Amino acid sequence: MFQLSLVGIGSGNPEHLTLQAIRVLESADIILLPRKGDAKTELADLRRMIASDVLKTQPKIVEFDYPVRDADTPKYLDGVNTWHDALATIWGGLIDAHAPKDGHIALMVWGDPSLYDSTLRIADRLLAQGLEIDVQVVPGITSLQMLTAAHAIPLNTLGAPVQITTGRRLRDFGWPEGVDTIAVMLDGENSFQSLAPEGYDIWWGAYVGMPGQILLAGELATIGPEIIQTRAEAREQHGWIMDIYLIRKR
Amino acid sequence: MFQLSLVGIGSGNPEHLTLQAIRVLESADIILLPRKGDAKTELADLRRMIASDVLKTQPKIVEFDYPVRDADTPKYLDGVNTWHDALATIWGGLIDAHAPKDGHIALMVWGDPSLYDSTLRIADRLLAQGLEIDVQVVPGITSLQMLTAAHAIPLNTLGAPVQITTGRRLRDFGWPEGVDTIAVMLDGENSFQSLAPEGYDIWWGAYVGMPGQILLAGELATIGPEIIQTRAEAREQHGWIMDIYLIRKR
Ligand SMILES: C[S@@+](CC[C@H](N)C(=O)[O-])C[C@H]1O[C@@H](n2cnc3c(N)ncnc32)[C@H](O)[C@@H]1O
Ligand SMILES: C[S@@+](CC[C@H](N)C(=O)[O-])C[C@H]1O[C@@H](n2cnc3c(N)ncnc32)[C@H](O)[C@@H]1O
Repeated sequence: MFQLSLVGIGSGNPEHLTLQAIRVLESADIILLPRKGDAKTELADLRRMIASDVLKTQPKIVEFDYPVRDADTPKYLDGVNTWHDALATIWGGLIDAHAPKDGHIALMVWGDPSLYDSTLRIADRLLAQGLEIDVQVVPGITSLQMLTAAHAIPLNTLGAPVQITTGRRLRDFGWPEGVDTIAVMLDGENSFQSLAPEGYDIWWGAYVGMPGQILLAGELATIGPEIIQTRAEAREQHGWIMDIYLIRKR
Repeated sequence: MFQLSLVGIGSGNPEHLTLQAIRVLESADIILLPRKGDAKTELADLRRMIASDVLKTQPKIVEFDYPVRDADTPKYLDGVNTWHDALATIWGGLIDAHAPKDGHIALMVWGDPSLYDSTLRIADRLLAQGLEIDVQVVPGITSLQMLTAAHAIPLNTLGAPVQITTGRRLRDFGWPEGVDTIAVMLDGENSFQSLAPEGYDIWWGAYVGMPGQILLAGELATIGPEIIQTRAEAREQHGWIMDIYLIRKR
């Protein structure tokens, strides 16, 4: 029985690591380290830096490439499932090739493994493929927590609910009923533009917790256009962007 | 200008502390440490233990008592505001009495300061009362992250939204529209009982991340009654309980 630890590493700053994350990573036999596309090498670099500079032990680092996602796959979900299967097969091969018998394999997961992340689903597929593994999750600071911390704001208003959602959902379904606050992730298109901008406040952040952090906040109607411009410029300059925002009804 | 750091400490295990939380606490001149009612001394004890055993410096610890919340206060919100004002006045007095000029004051906040927590609101009232403070927030692992990590489950289904809500909201408004997953906090009454139990799965946890951690999961219709009984027994035994759960539509 292998042990597989999915370790949340926070959202860009090695100081986000918890004592538990460090202990679990240090106790691993091997760490699987995905190389992403060129644009996101900064993310892979953070993982390498953690492995080389923060850990006091030196687990064996096994780097691997992501398979290319097939854009022609007919249905969205089929594409994702096929892709997760392909990744599970890759993980399985790497574990076979590099992990000792009953060894401990760790993966560093951006933010927290529970939030819009596929590693838990890939681990399930690995189990389905017949590999005997015990999966352990170590929580990490999410980008949403970095956003609220950077702006020094609460996520919820007093006793009220919050919806965490995606840019696509906001575009397709508008403001969700019954909540005064939404947190939007995975948005490549400034989807707040689909709201009639009066009566909302927005707290926006790009590269939160990272050296290039940018923060903007204010009334959506006035600050919205500035966010769009800032985002476009930052994306141009870095070659990639990750941003997240919270919107509250007034 | 004082510096006030609201430091998330995670949800019951000193290993949840991030490197940043430790650094910020170590650099404080004083740490304000609330004593809660008898039932929750375990929570105050964790804070004391962090201060004495985890930190390498020894900031001055200033313990203080919470004012009693006035149950007769006519409106719910007025009661909360009055209570927050009273707390801000207490913080202000302690800072005056114990902090050096332009000193750095830290507070350890359960979980993450953004999530159903009043410290940011109290800090705002301190500012409104005229104290010159610069507020810094250090994120911490939430009880919701501990729940999903302990059960090794994702918070969201693929690309779908999630609502974080309270027991009271679930009782008063039922299942929220447009989401397949809800996370319920601040529930003293097993409010999942207000749902017709067919067609849901539940992942429940009490004292998550703490030595007394209890986990239960399954179909709501079958496991619901077991949760109610387990919760009642645990509460009886410990004298207090903190529990949290995630429910997903099938
Ligand atoms: C695939 S999800 C992973 C989320 C991650 N598991 C977490 O806990 O934050 C990627 C999305 O998270 C958000 N995100 C992650 N890191 C970020 C950062 N440092 N700054 C801003 N947004 C970030 C963006 O909305 C991005 O589209
Ligand atoms: C006032 S809120 C504070 C939440 C905290 N700021 C956080 O980030 O988790 C208290 C609620 O959090 C949940 N909670 C906090 N710690 C918990 C734990 N160790 N186990 C289970 N639930 C917990 C319970 O739902 C409880 O009613």
